[in-house]
Amino acid sequence: MATQAPTSAHAAVAASGHGFLLPIRRPSTRIRLAVGRPATTLRAQPAAAEVVEQSVNTIRFLAVDAVEKAKSGHPGLPMGCAPLGHVLFDEFLRFNPKNPYWFNRDRFVLSAGHGCMLQYALLHLAGYDSVTMDDLKAFRQWGSRTPGHPENFETPGVEVTTGPLGQGFANAVGLALAEKHLAARFNRPDLKIVDHYTYVIAGDGCQMEGVSNEASSLAGHWGLGKLIAFYDDNHISIDGSTNIAFTEDVLARYEALGWHTIWVKNGNTGYDDIRAAIEEAQSVKDKPTLIKVTTTIGYGSPNKANTYSVHGSALGTKEVEATRNNLSWLHEPFHVPDEVKRHWSHHIDEGASLEAEWNNKFVEYEKKYHKEAAELKSIISGELPSGWDSALPTYTPESPADATRNLSQQCLNALAKAIPGFLGGSADLATSNMTLLKMFGDFQKDAPEERNIRFGVREHAMGAISNGIARHSSGLIPYCATFFVFTDYMRAAIRLSALCGSGVIFVMTHDSIGLGEDGPTHQPVEQLFSLRAMPNILMFRPADGKETSGAYKIAVLNRERPSVLALSRQKLQQLKGTTVEGVAKGGYIISDNSSGNKLDLILIGTGSELEIVEKAADELRKKGKTVRVVSLVCWELFEEQPEDYKESVFPSEVTSRISVEAGVTFGWEKYIGEKGKAIGIDRFGSSAPAGKIYKELGLTVQNVIAIARSL
Amino acid sequence: MATQAPTSAHAAVAASGHGFLLPIRRPSTRIRLAVGRPATTLRAQPAAAEVVEQSVNTIRFLAVDAVEKAKSGHPGLPMGCAPLGHVLFDEFLRFNPKNPYWFNRDRFVLSAGHGCMLQYALLHLAGYDSVTMDDLKAFRQWGSRTPGHPENFETPGVEVTTGPLGQGFANAVGLALAEKHLAARFNRPDLKIVDHYTYVIAGDGCQMEGVSNEASSLAGHWGLGKLIAFYDDNHISIDGSTNIAFTEDVLARYEALGWHTIWVKNGNTGYDDIRAAIEEAQSVKDKPTLIKVTTTIGYGSPNKANTYSVHGSALGTKEVEATRNNLSWLHEPFHVPDEVKRHWSHHIDEGASLEAEWNNKFVEYEKKYHKEAAELKSIISGELPSGWDSALPTYTPESPADATRNLSQQCLNALAKAIPGFLGGSADLATSNMTLLKMFGDFQKDAPEERNIRFGVREHAMGAISNGIARHSSGLIPYCATFFVFTDYMRAAIRLSALCGSGVIFVMTHDSIGLGEDGPTHQPVEQLFSLRAMPNILMFRPADGKETSGAYKIAVLNRERPSVLALSRQKLQQLKGTTVEGVAKGGYIISDNSSGNKLDLILIGTGSELEIVEKAADELRKKGKTVRVVSLVCWELFEEQPEDYKESVFPSEVTSRISVEAGVTFGWEKYIGEKGKAIGIDRFGSSAPAGKIYKELGLTVQNVIAIARSL
Repeated sequence: MATQAPTSAHAAVAASGHGFLLPIRRPSTRIRLAVGRPATTLRAQPAAAEVVEQSVNTIRFLAVDAVEKAKSGHPGLPMGCAPLGHVLFDEFLRFNPKNPYWFNRDRFVLSAGHGCMLQYALLHLAGYDSVTMDDLKAFRQWGSRTPGHPENFETPGVEVTTGPLGQGFANAVGLALAEKHLAARFNRPDLKIVDHYTYVIAGDGCQMEGVSNEASSLAGHWGLGKLIAFYDDNHISIDGSTNIAFTEDVLARYEALGWHTIWVKNGNTGYDDIRAAIEEAQSVKDKPTLIKVTTTIGYGSPNKANTYSVHGSALGTKEVEATRNNLSWLHEPFHVPDEVKRHWSHHIDEGASLEAEWNNKFVEYEKKYHKEAAELKSIISGELPSGWDSALPTYTPESPADATRNLSQQCLNALAKAIPGFLGGSADLATSNMTLLKMFGDFQKDAPEERNIRFGVREHAMGAISNGIARHSSGLIPYCATFFVFTDYMRAAIRLSALCGSGVIFVMTHDSIGLGEDGPTHQPVEQLFSLRAMPNILMFRPADGKETSGAYKIAVLNRERPSVLALSRQKLQQLKGTTVEGVAKGGYIISDNSSGNKLDLILIGTGSELEIVEKAADELRKKGKTVRVVSLVCWELFEEQPEDYKESVFPSEVTSRISVEAGVTFGWEKYIGEKGKAIGIDRFGSSAPAGKIYKELGLTVQNVIAIARSL
Repeated sequence: MATQAPTSAHAAVAASGHGFLLPIRRPSTRIRLAVGRPATTLRAQPAAAEVVEQSVNTIRFLAVDAVEKAKSGHPGLPMGCAPLGHVLFDEFLRFNPKNPYWFNRDRFVLSAGHGCMLQYALLHLAGYDSVTMDDLKAFRQWGSRTPGHPENFETPGVEVTTGPLGQGFANAVGLALAEKHLAARFNRPDLKIVDHYTYVIAGDGCQMEGVSNEASSLAGHWGLGKLIAFYDDNHISIDGSTNIAFTEDVLARYEALGWHTIWVKNGNTGYDDIRAAIEEAQSVKDKPTLIKVTTTIGYGSPNKANTYSVHGSALGTKEVEATRNNLSWLHEPFHVPDEVKRHWSHHIDEGASLEAEWNNKFVEYEKKYHKEAAELKSIISGELPSGWDSALPTYTPESPADATRNLSQQCLNALAKAIPGFLGGSADLATSNMTLLKMFGDFQKDAPEERNIRFGVREHAMGAISNGIARHSSGLIPYCATFFVFTDYMRAAIRLSALCGSGVIFVMTHDSIGLGEDGPTHQPVEQLFSLRAMPNILMFRPADGKETSGAYKIAVLNRERPSVLALSRQKLQQLKGTTVEGVAKGGYIISDNSSGNKLDLILIGTGSELEIVEKAADELRKKGKTVRVVSLVCWELFEEQPEDYKESVFPSEVTSRISVEAGVTFGWEKYIGEKGKAIGIDRFGSSAPAGKIYKELGLTVQNVIAIARSL
């Protein structure tokens, strides 16, 4: 059952007529002390009631004014959530505003990212240099640090890019997972060196999205006790009342998912209820907590509060004035009262103390636990252990033929041994994706130090949780896996990985019709192109062992863009001309019998079709043709090469070119040119043994030769 | 609370040692009568216990043998769900095997599509011509009607293509929605002409996927009382026990979602419990029901039952033999005992009677309710009312400039008036997507006759539910809407729409950086290409009113492939040269000042950039250049045109070509050729006013002119 915030405190609040009443409000100071705010920095007293009210209204009006100035934005959520935002940031969140990247900070995610003015206002008050008054005034303008949704790459202090609903919630699960994992690995009874909460604010929209349910089911399963989620229950979404589409019992659902739940019925003025709820949530160690905070969207606006019109539009001059009058906030736009400034200024010293204290602790930790400290340091800094890449397996043409999914597993296991922050898992396909780390057990509620993550059949949350893990610490390198076709289920998360610059490694096996009998629902044909079209992502399709190792090497080195590896289910031959170095260039010559003379033909392949291309080239060479074979293993890397290199691989004068790839041919025009020919699959696949499908769809050596002859 | 199937019946089953005991088992015959099996065809007696056992084992071994022969497939689910399958198909499901498309049939969806041998075995026993013994023996082979996952386009009797987990569940919600909607519109107190159940079997995987939670939340909200879902609770997924990743309380979650829930604890032999559960589910009219049926995966296999190894692999010769011995099934592979054949044969007559009876009812309905009957007929047949397309709005260059999302709303409203089966909605963006049908109210639990569907923020379920609606009746034309960038959330559903040939219309507004301040998370740049890469789909980007009407016309006509319309948030001018007929060709000339003489340049644009291109062309023409402007509104349709038409639009000799589109340039090589230039956005967008972003990213008339000069 949903528990209600203590009614006694609630009644006291009502009776006292303002935000709090000390004797009733803070019975659980001990709890806050116990859960970790260092004694040296614990504030015995929160701000005076008047200052809290002023601070909350400051937050509200910074949002109102910024949206008004931009003539665009979402004032409703910040106006409703300002009390929660104030209490959380001012009284609970541990951070150092002058170092937004301090490792042991609490993580905060605004999953309802449209309400970003709440976050910007809080970051500004808290003293972050990333959000100055000028930044607030440049809300939603070109080049500003206050874009229309929170972007981690624009605004230090923003942990993850949010906006697409539900993603931030799942990111928060990843952040909390990372904390639990690192705490289990590195904390010692005498020294808790990893110890922070992850807070997230989600709206009705986040709750409706399936990805948040997936992530929440996992968070409950994993018992992420330091994850505290606020559900801003304001009854309004863009189309109006949530009654028209969202009448489920959210708290009951969360209980079913294994969460502790609390309902703060008065999120508008119930400061003590909010405080009590957070304290209760902190006291629950074995379950994540969902705090439903019932608020009024657009609180304070006399004519627009509690309507959808305040969700995503500026209030308008008249209503801004009415709201100022209603809340007795008779200030100029963007006003921050001195008392509010003075009060919030304590965070600068407090934050510095928190970090200094932790730094001292780390010095002690380093002395006592030298090896662990070195490992943790590398996870924090992202510095890879020297020689890490020499751990990657090497292959020769004589190595046995193997599926690249199996070769991938050898890489994953090698990397997990060499890199302390390497961890990941599969969406219930570990034994098909070949992603188990053999030297580790399963990350579970009672075994959080392990590194095999079991995501269940939840691709979307898997991607978003991996993004959260990657954003936690530079040296955490998460990989996640499913069948390549199911990148479609997680595409929104992959896109955010690319957008927010997270170096997640997406291990995508069964990468073509080569998977055979499962048929067209399981056979990717357009996924290569749909991902090649996405900015800031590396789409690899390695052909054998050397290329698989090469792809992993680049993927690990690219900490600010994700990599997708498309891997075969079926065995592939180890080829002669492939190289690790070649992969780094994205495209390269793997064989050529022209000896610098005129080339008759360039054959281009990727992944499992490269061996078909090689065989066809051999046959054509036997007939006296000069043929070059190019592996185009990663188009994005190839495009980044200098023009002369590209020209050296694809000389302009050689217009006879054939590409062979078990996917749509759309897009190959780029490399085969107007006179070339693309062999591929411009239809959905079919259910049959793999060899049969390859043959029926013309992906054969014979067909390549026939087409080569026709050119 | 989850209710348990009556223990008295359960005890009786245990006591009797076989499947049922008549006096205890059928106290609720009245209920079944009441809920609709026509009195003339109600079977007073189910099969004798021995026949039920034989039938269930027949189903099990058809699955075992087919998988064994194919050396590939999923025997575990059919072996565990055979009792449920038998009871449902033989005793409850109303269908006519000789007409799988009979309108008033109960719909059955196997959401856990990997277990398709269950469905094939049942269709075979039930007498469907689509699954002969030869078909069963050709399981998972090239060209067979028994592919590795159920495909509606391969196997009559299969309602929807399933396999990607969770989709079928959401499709079933769409099928049930369609039934509720049509029943509300067409049933009369004296004549229930639309009256069937929708059944779905889902596995653990379906339950973990977010899309099923989204769809289930909606099904609960809508009170889809005739939706009955079975959750095959077998504790095993591919990675092993569900304990490693899935420990939530599923029934409690469904209760929170507003469902009635039942738990059949013994799904292996508790036939009466299954029967009682279905009867109970049928008796609950105001809520959908989830029946959790606890089964043993691979039931009967002495060494592999209850393990993941029986999930997705053939048992192997030895284990098949051991299973035959264990279940005393000492027959040749693919054996169907005569008693079983004889028993199931009644479905042929019964099905014919069911349909005949309904046909008679329809004759009566037609007499009494002539207008309604004509409308329903057109929904059933898919025949469009004559002259429907003349309802589409027309525009001239003098029509006011407008956003294509607004023009789209005019089309939607016109079509909904003209076409009785036209309905749809948005994922909580109705007022942004401009998708409300003004003459209709909201489809809700108590207003199911209405046609505005409120999907909430659930893009993925929206797509999958729309697929279900489209599969219900040929004449139902569902549209669904969100921001174009969020096609990423629903891509798996769009792909299934394309694969299973459903003519859903995806109305995708805010189709570029033109949406402005919301920033890169909300600005599609790669989505056009990622959808152009998908087979069997039409991707439209209309430029003005005429093109918007033209796109809708084609979308409505294409009942076997989906259409995606990318529409602008911002106002666009009505252009001179655009035409409805041009859209039908996908690409066409909208202006050309060459008078048949040599062309200096071809400018190509789509959507909102077509007016930029036109303006640039005008400027260049003023300088004496001969310039052609081509609108490439739908690449797929253009590719389907004869070569000479394509050549007439893009003459080979004109190599100076520039494309302008507010998206990635990748893929434009196809039309601009090696010497052309693509103007686009090869990065993520940015948060700023739209005009500013267009300018900063070079999507301007000036830039087009500058580049034209450089060519």
